[in-house]
Amino acid sequence: MLIREASILIDGRLLRDMNITIEGSRITEISPDIRDESRDGEVIDASGMLAIPGLINAHTHLAMTLFRGYADDMELIPWLEEKIWPLEAKLTSRDIHWGVKLGCLEMIRAGITCYSDMYYFMDETAQATKEMGLRAFLSAVLFDMRPDLIEDAEPFIKRWKGDDLVVPTVGPHAVYTCSEETLLKAMDLAEKHNVMLHIHLSETRSEVESFVNNCGQSPVEYLDSLGFLSNRVVAAHCTWLSPKDISIIADRGVHVAHCSISNQKLASGIAPLDQLQKAGVNICLGTDGASSNNSLNLFQEMKTTAISQKCAHSRPDIFGAIEVWKMATENAYAAFGLDLGLRAGALADLALIDLKKPWFCPLTNENIVSHLVYSAQGGVDTTIVGGKVLMRGGVIPGEEAILDRAQEQFQDLVAR
Amino acid sequence: MLIREASILIDGRLLRDMNITIEGSRITEISPDIRDESRDGEVIDASGMLAIPGLINAHTHLAMTLFRGYADDMELIPWLEEKIWPLEAKLTSRDIHWGVKLGCLEMIRAGITCYSDMYYFMDETAQATKEMGLRAFLSAVLFDMRPDLIEDAEPFIKRWKGDDLVVPTVGPHAVYTCSEETLLKAMDLAEKHNVMLHIHLSETRSEVESFVNNCGQSPVEYLDSLGFLSNRVVAAHCTWLSPKDISIIADRGVHVAHCSISNQKLASGIAPLDQLQKAGVNICLGTDGASSNNSLNLFQEMKTTAISQKCAHSRPDIFGAIEVWKMATENAYAAFGLDLGLRAGALADLALIDLKKPWFCPLTNENIVSHLVYSAQGGVDTTIVGGKVLMRGGVIPGEEAILDRAQEQFQDLVAR
Repeated sequence: MLIREASILIDGRLLRDMNITIEGSRITEISPDIRDESRDGEVIDASGMLAIPGLINAHTHLAMTLFRGYADDMELIPWLEEKIWPLEAKLTSRDIHWGVKLGCLEMIRAGITCYSDMYYFMDETAQATKEMGLRAFLSAVLFDMRPDLIEDAEPFIKRWKGDDLVVPTVGPHAVYTCSEETLLKAMDLAEKHNVMLHIHLSETRSEVESFVNNCGQSPVEYLDSLGFLSNRVVAAHCTWLSPKDISIIADRGVHVAHCSISNQKLASGIAPLDQLQKAGVNICLGTDGASSNNSLNLFQEMKTTAISQKCAHSRPDIFGAIEVWKMATENAYAAFGLDLGLRAGALADLALIDLKKPWFCPLTNENIVSHLVYSAQGGVDTTIVGGKVLMRGGVIPGEEAILDRAQEQFQDLVAR
Repeated sequence: MLIREASILIDGRLLRDMNITIEGSRITEISPDIRDESRDGEVIDASGMLAIPGLINAHTHLAMTLFRGYADDMELIPWLEEKIWPLEAKLTSRDIHWGVKLGCLEMIRAGITCYSDMYYFMDETAQATKEMGLRAFLSAVLFDMRPDLIEDAEPFIKRWKGDDLVVPTVGPHAVYTCSEETLLKAMDLAEKHNVMLHIHLSETRSEVESFVNNCGQSPVEYLDSLGFLSNRVVAAHCTWLSPKDISIIADRGVHVAHCSISNQKLASGIAPLDQLQKAGVNICLGTDGASSNNSLNLFQEMKTTAISQKCAHSRPDIFGAIEVWKMATENAYAAFGLDLGLRAGALADLALIDLKKPWFCPLTNENIVSHLVYSAQGGVDTTIVGGKVLMRGGVIPGEEAILDRAQEQFQDLVAR
């Protein structure tokens, strides 16, 4: 495949009229030389477009896209007890299938090429994700009340290890839902199979305070005392951290998946990204589930992250556009070990964005990252994962049928 | 004009298959009856679409759209002194023309049908806005250092009073840039001609603190002591208010234009909307200029307002979707005296939004406002102002030429 005359980003600057050659699942060449042919005959004219390497959604629960708008503006406990948990108790694999496909549609439209998930029915999630063509790091959510899920964690890894798109991970839910035994089992499994660990960590103030009251140490200190924390861990949220917690997270090389919109919508708080960053922690961005966001869009997440951090610290000069752009791209590539970027040899996971939109005007070689972070309002034209075109010209084949089926499945779920 | 089979919003619920008849600049009928003809022969098939009354951008500086991405992530004073003011010093009416048209494009794409502005070269702004077909409340920015602008405030009102789209207003910049004489003159002019007043009020902490230190009263108390505050005033920002300020604003019927994104990006703070609301103040939403946002999109503004208020007050149940939706619509209609809404007799200012998008799925009759506030990511298909179609099927005639000219104008401005 040949992508002709795209603009690309190099060190935050725009470089125009570049040709990107893709063979199989990888980029083979990026060059300013004019080329007219591609080996397989497929040519995409990208003049007037910006090619970006794929954005990575570092924390979500994708099947919950089926719950979008089902319950909003509620206190956390009634929201969970009266709305989310009763619906989750009725979930079947068909709900998961259509919820995941619906979520994939939205991410494809937003230039997200890979996501990290923790939820139920992960084989169904993996299968639906593969059918949609996205890349994913998937873990069944593990907690003590569902021993069946814990039992299946290792077989799940074995079933999916080596897949071209799905990477199995291990996902103990949180310190307050998993016993020491479960956490240690998850850690051992991850080490044995050399896969990543995905956990919710210190999301709400009350959760952290009650853990400290009960156990005499913070969730971070506790996990560290178990030897759980390492650079194979992606910890979602990390909203309420002590200075000691931050130093532990930094020392162990834990990656943080910051979920700015979800944390604000659920009134969980503003994470101390400034302190995490000063300590050298690798920060990525996640949307969380669409039940608490309610979008799956990292452009929104980048802007919200930047402005909420500036405001929280009364410092308009911190968390600049390039820094936040890296959270959605390079930092996540490092966290997940993704060989990704616009360079020869990298995975061909990328998006083409139409620059002929008001929100990209005026455009200079220097302000493009500012526009991506602060101004972009859609306009992703083409999304490619592993060399396969998932959307082109804003068209995802089969989208309408998926929307219809997801709608039916939701109605079936609530009526069940 | 006949808009066929649209869904509409009534009291926050979706009502499907409604036909909207427009004659001249007004809606003449909304009815579920099937109609096939329109008097002028123009029919828009809106099946699968939601008709909303136009969103109102209650505070912006539209020509500054030309400065988008020119300077970000800076402290306020160097940002103004090193970047914004030097550029503003060079502005010509041609810059304003193309900056305004660029801003209009973006607002048309976001379903905004009317905006309230305060800036330089307001005749040029008015003319460019009329050429784009949007409705606007326009005031030249008045401050003591530009007596020419103060002199022209009344002639400007006389030139534009009675126009079908442009409504002149009076815009004294702020208490720290306008003398008592200027403020009183602005107030007298507004009363004499029965037009609105538009002012920046208590945007930053340092501005309020230094005013209190110098004058012994808050900016709100001071304006009230002049008799300036009334229900003809739209006060932008109102970020730093004392309980006494809030009570004055409520008693005088002042309308507040809240600018959540700009306030956060410039690290000005989170406005006390909860207290304003408890006091019964009418709250609208503004984008502020694209130099500090950097978008002109009220969908973003609604989401950011809701989640930042929830988070600031640790209350996920406050500032629900319907309340915030009203800020961008009904509250603004009341503030500006706009006869607007989806009902017979109202001005035909409306947008059609394509519901066949992932972010509107699943859709129920009850969750539509949640989707508009928390999930919508574009998809405005058609924008109509005063019965005139400005965008249809996502196409704005002449858009590409405007983008090209705005780009050239920006390059000319910075090189000048």
